[in-house]
This record gives sequence, C-alpha cells and structure tokens, in this order.
Amino acid sequence: MTDQEFVAELEAIRSDRTSGAAELARRCLEIAAETCQQDNSPSTRELLARLNIRIDQLAQSRPSMAPVANILRIFQEDIKELTHFPLEEAGKQCVNKARQTIEASLKSTQKTAVNASEFIGGNRTVFTHSYSSTILQTFTLLAENEIKVIVSEARPLCEGYRLAEKLSQMKIPTTLITDAQTGLFIAEADIVLVGADTILPDFSVMNKAGTYLLALAAHDNNIPLYVCSEKYKQLQPGSITPELEAMDGAELNGPELPFVTIENIYFDITPAKFITGWINEDGVVQVHPR
Amino acid sequence: MTDQEFVAELEAIRSDRTSGAAELARRCLEIAAETCQQDNSPSTRELLARLNIRIDQLAQSRPSMAPVANILRIFQEDIKELTHFPLEEAGKQCVNKARQTIEASLKSTQKTAVNASEFIGGNRTVFTHSYSSTILQTFTLLAENEIKVIVSEARPLCEGYRLAEKLSQMKIPTTLITDAQTGLFIAEADIVLVGADTILPDFSVMNKAGTYLLALAAHDNNIPLYVCSEKYKQLQPGSITPELEAMDGAELNGPELPFVTIENIYFDITPAKFITGWINEDGVVQVHPR
Repeated sequence: MTDQEFVAELEAIRSDRTSGAAELARRCLEIAAETCQQDNSPSTRELLARLNIRIDQLAQSRPSMAPVANILRIFQEDIKELTHFPLEEAGKQCVNKARQTIEASLKSTQKTAVNASEFIGGNRTVFTHSYSSTILQTFTLLAENEIKVIVSEARPLCEGYRLAEKLSQMKIPTTLITDAQTGLFIAEADIVLVGADTILPDFSVMNKAGTYLLALAAHDNNIPLYVCSEKYKQLQPGSITPELEAMDGAELNGPELPFVTIENIYFDITPAKFITGWINEDGVVQVHPR
Repeated sequence: MTDQEFVAELEAIRSDRTSGAAELARRCLEIAAETCQQDNSPSTRELLARLNIRIDQLAQSRPSMAPVANILRIFQEDIKELTHFPLEEAGKQCVNKARQTIEASLKSTQKTAVNASEFIGGNRTVFTHSYSSTILQTFTLLAENEIKVIVSEARPLCEGYRLAEKLSQMKIPTTLITDAQTGLFIAEADIVLVGADTILPDFSVMNKAGTYLLALAAHDNNIPLYVCSEKYKQLQPGSITPELEAMDGAELNGPELPFVTIENIYFDITPAKFITGWINEDGVVQVHPR
C-alpha cells in the first residue's frame, strides 16, 4: 500500500460516520495487513518501523473510539517479537497476526451476541438506540423468539434507520421513533440494550449521543439497561477518557444564522450508576443491578 | 363565516404543527368573533346555539392542548348572559367578549414573560427546547442582558430552528443542537426554561416531546428547570389528562419498511417532581425547589 493510498484510507476512517468502533478497528487491522503485503522495505527493521508509524496514525484516527487504539496496540505488542525474523517471514507473520486479530474480534462480537440473546430469551420488547453491529447480531439470533424492538433514530445521521431496515428484513416488529420520543416509549420496553464505542475503567459508557438520555429515562421507569459490547472496548485503569469527537454542524441541515452555532458531538457518556449490567464474550457482568 | 369557511378553519387548526397552544386558542376565539360578525341567524337564541356548536368543535380540535378548550369554555361562560339581549346587541357583545379574551390572553403572556425575564436577570445561559411564544417574549426582554441560549431542535419538525432564527435577529449568542445532544450541553446551562401546552392539576407539564428528557438531564445535573406559562394553561382538579396527539409518522421522513411502524407523538409529560417552579403572570410558584 503506497503512502498515497494509506492517506486516503486514513481519511476514510476519520470521516466514516456510519461504522461502529469494532468495524473501524478491524478495518485498521486490514490496512496494517495490506501495508505488509505490498511493502518494499529493504529490512525487517524498516518494515516494522514503517508499519508502526502507520499503526500510530490509525490508532489516533478516532479519539472517541478507544477500541480502535486498543486493538491496534494488541497487534503492535504481538509483532514486537518479529524484529529478528527474516524480512519475508516477518511480513507474512504480520499479515497472519493482523488477520488472526480480526478473526478474534469477530468471534468476540459473535460470542457477545450469543450471550446477549440467551440472556434476553424471547417474548420481550427491547429498546435500543442508533446502530450497533453487536446489537444487530443479537437481534439476528433472536429473530425467531417473538421479540419486538423499539429504536430511536439517532440524529443527525439517523443510523437507527439502518437498524430498522435490517430488522424489517428479519420480520421483527419494530417501532421507529425520534430521539425526543424516547421518554414516551421507554415504558413499553422490558429491557434496554445498547452498544458501546468505549467502556471507561469505571464502567461508564461512551456511545452515540442520546444514550445517556435513554439511560435516564430507563432509570426513571425502572427498566434495566444492559450494555452489549466486547471486552476489548474497555479502557485500562488510569487511561485518559477519550475526547468526545465534534463533527461538522452542517450534518444537521439546520439554518445558517449569525450568532447561532450548530453543535454536532457524536458521543455522550452514560455514568455507570445508570447501567444495570455489561454483557460481553464471557457472560454478564452486573454493574448496578436494579 | 359560512359553514364551509368554518370547516376549513377548523381543519387548519387541527393540522397546524407550528403554533403553540396559546396562539391556537386565540385563533379559535377570532373564529368565534368572525362567526358572530357574519351571522344571519333570525334570533339571539339561534345565534348563540350556532356559536356554541362551533365553540364545541373548536374546543375538541386539539386534545393535547388544554388551553384551547379552557379559553373557549371561559368565553362560553361569558356569553351565557347574552341570551336575553336583542339579536344585534348580542352579536356585537359576543365579538367584543371574544376580542377582550384574546387581549387578556396576550396580556397574560406578556406579564408571564416579564416575570420570567426579571427572575432570570442577566449573564446567564438558558437551555430551552423547541419553540414557545412565551419563551420567545422572555428572550426578547432579555436580549440586552448578556444571556446565551442553548436550544434543542425538536424533531421531527424542528421548531427549535424557528426560535434560533428569532434569537439570531436579536443577536443573542445561541447554540443549536440535536435533541440527542441534550445530555451533552445541559451542564453548560445555568437554568432550563420551557413552555407548556398544558399544565396538569398536580403541576406535571405536557409539552413538546423531549421536554421530559431535558428535565431528567437537568435533574441529574442539578440545574433548575422552570416552566414559563400562563395560568389558564392549567387544568382544573379532577380533569381528565388530555390525550397525547399522535401525528403522521411520515413527518419523520424515515424509511417505509414492512414490520416497521414510525411513531410521531408530539407531546410528553414531565412529572412535577422534575419541575423546580412555574413562572406565570402572577409570579413564581415553587413546585419542587432544588
């Protein structure tokens, strides 16, 4: 992968407004694999140096999505041992390790979805916000279990519509609402299930803006809220809380007016006290049981 | 006003998605006045009977907006005494009383806005949701007082944009956000100020969907929330809670999909426990002081 191609890929990741953190993390690993496959470095040392520079740039590309950096750091640790391998073998191993990490991530997501679907069972109404690939997989497993879904659209880009489309294909009865109606429909839910872009060390959850409001409404109505997310999305203790990425206000399609600033922050933080539990690939962790 | 013209007016009120409850109540009174002005009834009894039928239809036109019915009932009580007046005099008096009631409503709104502006003072950041004519008047009075405003758009029709336009004209620095970002910006506010379509006997507030979420966020962040609304918007004890009007889901511009129902309920109810106080034309009523 040439420098020019890499810069284009990096920019695509920075401006991706629809993929979740796990999808982007895997895309970054794929870019790392392709970097090694199409490399002309004269030595293993230079190959790894070049790769590590790209990994650092990718790791910093989405500051609100800790898993992107987390998963790249795991890969970076993995390839350290390759320093003394012959060039061709080192390149091959890098590609293998990247693809194995992608596989492991997909398996974590799949196992998380299995655990979530078993926890939910059937005959329930599940409220979710926006789009999460883990949540979608959970619903796929639950499609025959007589569940109903309520999904809020998630302005400005309304990723909830994407989820509604997939649910429609699975013939799952779905209610699609504006984010503002969350408080009106929460009482119809048996359980709230949300994905996570990042889980903070204290179990607070960074996710699509509006998740915090959904959690407040769930709490006020005594509806349990579970976060459904792979373990590698959690930050290590002592980590700095990722910044909340501010995107282009023009995405709202609001009026352009003097003295008026349109804000467009994609993520909010739901404090741990509003989270009943965390469903991950190992099972269900109780956070604040109701 | 012919029957045909009346039906058109009634339909316009039913389908009005931008005017607040007070504006619509005044429009109904104006229709009552015009009914009397252009009437060919042969007797006072028949004039009043015809008028009362129209008033009943107008009073039922917006079930989520108690003031529409409230203000028409006040007018209906007022004109009872005209039964024994000669026809021409009765008609004239009806018109006068309707216009006086409109004037009284406008004065209540103005006095409410004066009380709210004095309560707020200056150098504050005020968070509001959607569009309310009482809140707009309050901001007009505060325009020179170095206030800042945060306003959430209020999907699906984004009446918040209308407020932002007016604030822009007054050169008030304004932050415009999606409803989903309410939890991100609440901490920047000193006070939350919202209008009301209806105030229930226990001081719970029916207002544009999303108000309840804003109140939850304000409560969780220890920011006081005041409702700014004329007294006639409160329902009498023992009244039935008005229905929450469900509008056309197509207003969301979401995808049309099998198994997916798009819901579009315009109003939600904020329980009194989340309301710090009620500012009306008499002053400030403490509801649940923080």
